[in-house]
Amino acid sequence: MRLASLLGPDIKQILKEDPDQIRDLLDEIHPEDLADIVSELDPDEAAELLARIPAEDAAPIFERLEEHEQEELVEQMPKESVAEIASEMAADDRADLFSALPDEVGERLFEALERVDPEAAQEVRDIEKWPDTSAGHLMTTDFVAVSPRILVAEALDVVRKRAKERDEFVYTVYALDKDRLAGVASLRDLLIADATQGIAEVMRTNVISVPPTMDQEEVARRMAKYDLNVIPVVAEEGRLLGVITIDDIIDVLVREQTEDVQKIGAVEPLDVPYFQTSFLTFIKKRAVWLIVLFVEEFFTQTALRYYDPVMEAVKGALLYVPLLISAGGNSGSQSSTLVIRGLALGEVKLSDWWRILIREAAMGLFLGAMIALIAMGRVLMYPDQTMRFAITVALTVLAIILAGCTVGAMLPIILKRLGIDPATSSTPFIASLVDTLGVVIYAHVAMLVMNDVIQKAQEAAQAAH
Amino acid sequence: MRLASLLGPDIKQILKEDPDQIRDLLDEIHPEDLADIVSELDPDEAAELLARIPAEDAAPIFERLEEHEQEELVEQMPKESVAEIASEMAADDRADLFSALPDEVGERLFEALERVDPEAAQEVRDIEKWPDTSAGHLMTTDFVAVSPRILVAEALDVVRKRAKERDEFVYTVYALDKDRLAGVASLRDLLIADATQGIAEVMRTNVISVPPTMDQEEVARRMAKYDLNVIPVVAEEGRLLGVITIDDIIDVLVREQTEDVQKIGAVEPLDVPYFQTSFLTFIKKRAVWLIVLFVEEFFTQTALRYYDPVMEAVKGALLYVPLLISAGGNSGSQSSTLVIRGLALGEVKLSDWWRILIREAAMGLFLGAMIALIAMGRVLMYPDQTMRFAITVALTVLAIILAGCTVGAMLPIILKRLGIDPATSSTPFIASLVDTLGVVIYAHVAMLVMNDVIQKAQEAAQAAH
Repeated sequence: MRLASLLGPDIKQILKEDPDQIRDLLDEIHPEDLADIVSELDPDEAAELLARIPAEDAAPIFERLEEHEQEELVEQMPKESVAEIASEMAADDRADLFSALPDEVGERLFEALERVDPEAAQEVRDIEKWPDTSAGHLMTTDFVAVSPRILVAEALDVVRKRAKERDEFVYTVYALDKDRLAGVASLRDLLIADATQGIAEVMRTNVISVPPTMDQEEVARRMAKYDLNVIPVVAEEGRLLGVITIDDIIDVLVREQTEDVQKIGAVEPLDVPYFQTSFLTFIKKRAVWLIVLFVEEFFTQTALRYYDPVMEAVKGALLYVPLLISAGGNSGSQSSTLVIRGLALGEVKLSDWWRILIREAAMGLFLGAMIALIAMGRVLMYPDQTMRFAITVALTVLAIILAGCTVGAMLPIILKRLGIDPATSSTPFIASLVDTLGVVIYAHVAMLVMNDVIQKAQEAAQAAH
Repeated sequence: MRLASLLGPDIKQILKEDPDQIRDLLDEIHPEDLADIVSELDPDEAAELLARIPAEDAAPIFERLEEHEQEELVEQMPKESVAEIASEMAADDRADLFSALPDEVGERLFEALERVDPEAAQEVRDIEKWPDTSAGHLMTTDFVAVSPRILVAEALDVVRKRAKERDEFVYTVYALDKDRLAGVASLRDLLIADATQGIAEVMRTNVISVPPTMDQEEVARRMAKYDLNVIPVVAEEGRLLGVITIDDIIDVLVREQTEDVQKIGAVEPLDVPYFQTSFLTFIKKRAVWLIVLFVEEFFTQTALRYYDPVMEAVKGALLYVPLLISAGGNSGSQSSTLVIRGLALGEVKLSDWWRILIREAAMGLFLGAMIALIAMGRVLMYPDQTMRFAITVALTVLAIILAGCTVGAMLPIILKRLGIDPATSSTPFIASLVDTLGVVIYAHVAMLVMNDVIQKAQEAAQAAH
């Protein structure tokens, strides 16, 4: 970013005074840094800069901009110019651009692209028809396909020719037999082979691929597992549709992880960096959950109101409510994050639910017993509290932590079973849920352990009336 | 995994009956799937299987096993056999193995490796001297270095020779001038160049590199930003120490993310999958935080006890405590996860703290006002509650949410400033912190709004004594 802030003002100056110089200047700078510079410019200056350079130089800059920056530029620039830039973009980045644009703007740009480069427009259609987070949507239709009948030397020529034409480099050649994927040869396979061998001899036919409908997180998992830099997307009948490269997978991982963390913290996923998110968007993304959680907590208050006669009968009982119920929320948060992450990594499967239940219940009993001892000590620190009350508090904590662990562990599994993202069972959500349960447990344990005390107190209260 | 469960029993059978057949059988299977199969075997069977195949075939299987599986095998097998396998492993995976082993086991294996392959042992030393999560520790010292004075054709020959020797393929050639990195040529650069050109002519000298001390998360960020598949690690004086490849970066991203999620859920990071974590480890990783949070909540109880006279004076006030204080925890959780993730992605910097504070305070006021209206409605639903009490509850919620947003946003920043991982400010931690604050706010707002009611009630109570 430092480079961008240094160069930004200079470039503004040059754009004003001698715009023809821009091209020479930009030759030396990495497209990623150029994208940073463009981000620092005002939209009209950025539009002018991109208009000044040829579309094939503008494309690598444009495809590295944030979605909202692309959107601004598309609205500033003539549709034909953007279409020319889009026609030079990698097929997957181009499809992403169209996915991100508001419908109306996207349609006008698409019409322009159809005039400028009908083939590129078709590629957008081929990618956009797959669901948003699927392998099909993530893939690029831009791959090197050869016949299995050509020679290694010929295949290397194809790779060489392609490397000269395009910025993105290809490390794998796909051998197609009438559109069907017959085998794969990496550049390594081609280089160590004899130049006069046929592709069919050197290609691997045991290819790890994914279907276009597979969720992109699953694709990421598979590529990470097999340490693949690229994976082919293959339709049911064996037709090669496109390929997914590792750089897109990294973006997927980072994006999905951000979503998970935000959901765990009870925020609707933002998609956009913190400072680029508008105040109104923040309010929307946060308000819904705050309201849900607040209304959820009404039940805790209703439970407290319902059991008020019990609570009033035991001196000081109400003062222990936050301490006791929060223990359930804490243990529940631990269990739910462990299970959410286990599910996300594929370490834990839905069919494991009973093993998890047994484990978490055992852990809840153990952790609960430990905290119960501390709680007892805490109660007995006060000389005005009885042993009976200390036992009530201890048993309550034990039961609440047991409930927290089991509810916290099971909720993500139930959500996933229902087709809802398990990360939706945010830690505050679990906490609120267990809060209500905690009050009910507290009251019932008190009625069990201190029944005579409670009855006496209630009789005394009635007599006083 | 299905393949592994299918083949596991067969392989057990063959190991017993005709162990010499094993080698032929394994030729057809991807090392990753073989690693799955080895994971399914008992440690002694796995040790026998690995002993049956040559070290160069065993290495790609061994380096794909989980750390705890490697550890078991190292303890089962003769140290010399493991040392031979280790000598065939990629330099970075080999160093990881030694980092993961308990000190004593690691030392005995290291002695064996020094006898079997002194060069490999030296590479372990070169990598292990760097801090655990640094670029130096993540890199492999295994890269292709050439003189800038050789021809493109010669460099291609080096790559070819190397590809035949090793399983891992090299896509980049580093031109060294007396150990100093002079330039970088990708395979693409070599292929599109003329075979008779010199490397110095085709190499890029404007190389994006990282220092060995850089944190691996920062390395991951840089590689993702520039879409790099490999990045060189360069010492201060320009000496090339090693390279970091993209597959290791994916592992870093996933591991760091798991740590963050677990910390946000108040669990000490586990390092090992859910079901492979022992019960005792779980207890240790969870108990510390549960105790900390429970003790933190003592303050809430102390505050409640301190303000009990105020609470008692307003009929029903205590019943609203969980509802009110949980709103602070919820809004605080939202703010803290947003800031934690922003810091992890580098979207938010420490120097932005005042911008964040202003934003979160404004958001707290807005969200607080919204929830305050709902809270007022809730109180007035009960015919036995006064308007004065409804206003008290509304103002309290507003102030508590304001406090939640600002404390939740600032705590991760303060922690990072102190050199502590910001994710340590888990959502339960924020919630407990804001709980205490919430009680204090509630009591003071009540004293402000309902002062006369409280005083009258307290006088009446004293008179009754």
